[in-house]
Amino acid sequence: MRAAEIDEEYPVVDIDSPAVDAARMLAEHSLPGIVVLTADGQLYAVLPASQVVRLIVPGYVQEDPLLARVLAESVADRAVETLGGKTIRELLPQQRLRLPIANADDTILEVATIMGMMRSPLIAVMKQGKLHGVITASRLSAMALKCALAGVSA
Amino acid sequence: MRAAEIDEEYPVVDIDSPAVDAARMLAEHSLPGIVVLTADGQLYAVLPASQVVRLIVPGYVQEDPLLARVLAESVADRAVETLGGKTIRELLPQQRLRLPIANADDTILEVATIMGMMRSPLIAVMKQGKLHGVITASRLSAMALKCALAGVSA
Repeated sequence: MRAAEIDEEYPVVDIDSPAVDAARMLAEHSLPGIVVLTADGQLYAVLPASQVVRLIVPGYVQEDPLLARVLAESVADRAVETLGGKTIRELLPQQRLRLPIANADDTILEVATIMGMMRSPLIAVMKQGKLHGVITASRLSAMALKCALAGVSA
Repeated sequence: MRAAEIDEEYPVVDIDSPAVDAARMLAEHSLPGIVVLTADGQLYAVLPASQVVRLIVPGYVQEDPLLARVLAESVADRAVETLGGKTIRELLPQQRLRLPIANADDTILEVATIMGMMRSPLIAVMKQGKLHGVITASRLSAMALKCALAGVSA
């Protein structure tokens, strides 16, 4: 099995759309993460849900996580409110993130290895420099299961 | 908002159950990860889906990821088959994993901070040493969204 055979269509979000749109995608569809494109359709970022959630943590708390402990509940709730009104671009880290990507002809084992190493529950599959589809951990598990069951019954 | 107010029931899996059960849970219910308990109901591990997928990568490839590249497709497919017949305990790393946990009275900001730092899309909420519930990144996004929209309209 090759990556391009098992990848799927996946919702994408524009880098200049409101950050609440990304949160809404995760919240409503239980997606494992978001795929962020630039205005001209280039892949810009693939963010695991845990890192989307991180966008709602104010920079001063990310730099000193112990602060999260000492902030009162009302202040903590208010900090989370900062998500409102910002775009995804504004909340992304300044330095470009490493992209969890695989090539169209990578094997299922290569995809699993990339997924594990990068701790990303979704992998963008690239073909000739363009986004071909996405493989989620759920999808990969389903495929691995097929192989495993085939192995057991063989 | 406190962790124990927003956590939810979540499917758990016994450490001695077949690893294919874990893969099946991910595959069928698109869960963000699995919660592993010991036979006496103690929390043993919380594995993000990306790390469950990693269980199907043979140890020799985990140690030398470049190997994944050079294995032929048939060998790669066969390696994945090793998942069949093994228990979760057999596939877990020897050294105990750090648990992504929060306390029942942690704020939403603390939970988001732990989630981001540990890159875990699910956090086990503990109350008096016992598993009280789980907060997924989707759930946290939904709550953050509520706060953000409240902030915008205020």
